[in-house]
Amino acid sequence: MSKPQGSQTIYGLHAVRVMLQKHPQRVSTVRVAERRDDPRVREIDELARRSQIPVQRVDAQVLRQKVGDVSHQGVAADVSPLPPWSEDDLVIAVQAAAQVAEQPVIVALDGVQDPHNLGACLRTADACGALAVVVPRDRAAHVTPVVRKVAVGAAETTPVVTVTNLVRALKLLKEAGLWVIGADADAAKRADEVDFKGGVVLVLGAEGAGLRQLTRQTCDWVVRLPQLGAVESLNVSVAAGMLLYEVVRQRAR
Amino acid sequence: MSKPQGSQTIYGLHAVRVMLQKHPQRVSTVRVAERRDDPRVREIDELARRSQIPVQRVDAQVLRQKVGDVSHQGVAADVSPLPPWSEDDLVIAVQAAAQVAEQPVIVALDGVQDPHNLGACLRTADACGALAVVVPRDRAAHVTPVVRKVAVGAAETTPVVTVTNLVRALKLLKEAGLWVIGADADAAKRADEVDFKGGVVLVLGAEGAGLRQLTRQTCDWVVRLPQLGAVESLNVSVAAGMLLYEVVRQRAR
Repeated sequence: MSKPQGSQTIYGLHAVRVMLQKHPQRVSTVRVAERRDDPRVREIDELARRSQIPVQRVDAQVLRQKVGDVSHQGVAADVSPLPPWSEDDLVIAVQAAAQVAEQPVIVALDGVQDPHNLGACLRTADACGALAVVVPRDRAAHVTPVVRKVAVGAAETTPVVTVTNLVRALKLLKEAGLWVIGADADAAKRADEVDFKGGVVLVLGAEGAGLRQLTRQTCDWVVRLPQLGAVESLNVSVAAGMLLYEVVRQRAR
Repeated sequence: MSKPQGSQTIYGLHAVRVMLQKHPQRVSTVRVAERRDDPRVREIDELARRSQIPVQRVDAQVLRQKVGDVSHQGVAADVSPLPPWSEDDLVIAVQAAAQVAEQPVIVALDGVQDPHNLGACLRTADACGALAVVVPRDRAAHVTPVVRKVAVGAAETTPVVTVTNLVRALKLLKEAGLWVIGADADAAKRADEVDFKGGVVLVLGAEGAGLRQLTRQTCDWVVRLPQLGAVESLNVSVAAGMLLYEVVRQRAR
């Protein structure tokens, strides 16, 4: 079975199961290591069968060659790439979340140009349950093979929304009921002094430069993160991780 | 003035000022962009003069060539590398902190082999005021030029302590009065359910593998971080950032 053009490989029991449950139409092939046989693998077998997706038994060595030296747990799947979202798709997803009383979290990156940083932000956004990552079309990194690799699969599950005008997109999201909260080194409030329990857009600027002035002005709040060190600012994906951690923490209480 | 062998360049007003205040003996040259003249630059000038350190006025272009395309704020300094710390140095530093009623935070990395991850952890540890980063001698990344580059200066301010036996080092730190808290995906407690106000060692395992069993058993507590996503675990430097954020948050309250 040849891999369809443009398809991506995801791996790990959890990732493959979630993809088969939520987006079976995106899965073309599932690969399972020959000797794996336990309830979790059988569940994946059953899910694939229901959607008439072929399951190949392969040598563990073949699997490793396919996905690289990662913790694949004996399972991988070829999936079609996540279709890009438009601004409209994003607003529709926010409205759909509101209808089921979910409070979405969206990450917006203001001028992040390094593909490693975009990939790392996608990975962290996925781990913290973010709905999407918003990036401006110009002077910003977009999803490339490097980004997908750094995101270790998150680029196939967390949509990236490219917008022509970030400030206008933030205003649209405010109208849709979200709070726009930016990270800024000079902010008066610490992150934990702001309420993240409602739907929020977390806005992060490029390292060094920070948020652009117009972006900052569009924020409902700006908050600061720890900066006790002798040297530089935080890496943008670590800053995103701290803000997302704060959101998850407040909601878990 | 030639750059002494093995010296490293740090940059930014804050980084250079802190280095001149705390470790003037490690600074060989300060470079300031020609047109910079404001109170913060004059303070650096004055600090360097007091320690008889030469200050060179250089073209902004030269500065950029020297430090790369980063936010140098018109200031850089050549500093001798941070001498490595032994286990004894670490214990002495912990005891010294206790004497002035400080509660140190130490980051320990259990089997982190990727130099990018070590560099990113150093940068985050520095930003959150960690005392040191502990790594085992075998099967782990150590400070190399790549690590220094990713750490954007933090390798010159946050000491890396290489230990022969990580579990023994953790036990030593427990005896010195610190709590040892590990990050573990299967932990029953969330990070915010544990008290980080005392002196702590935060222990992080390699991605995928997690903490080794003996390391986990040495922890006083294990805590979990957000894992709401479809795909992989968190990047180790992002996980370190979240735990360090939680420490700083609890202490700020």
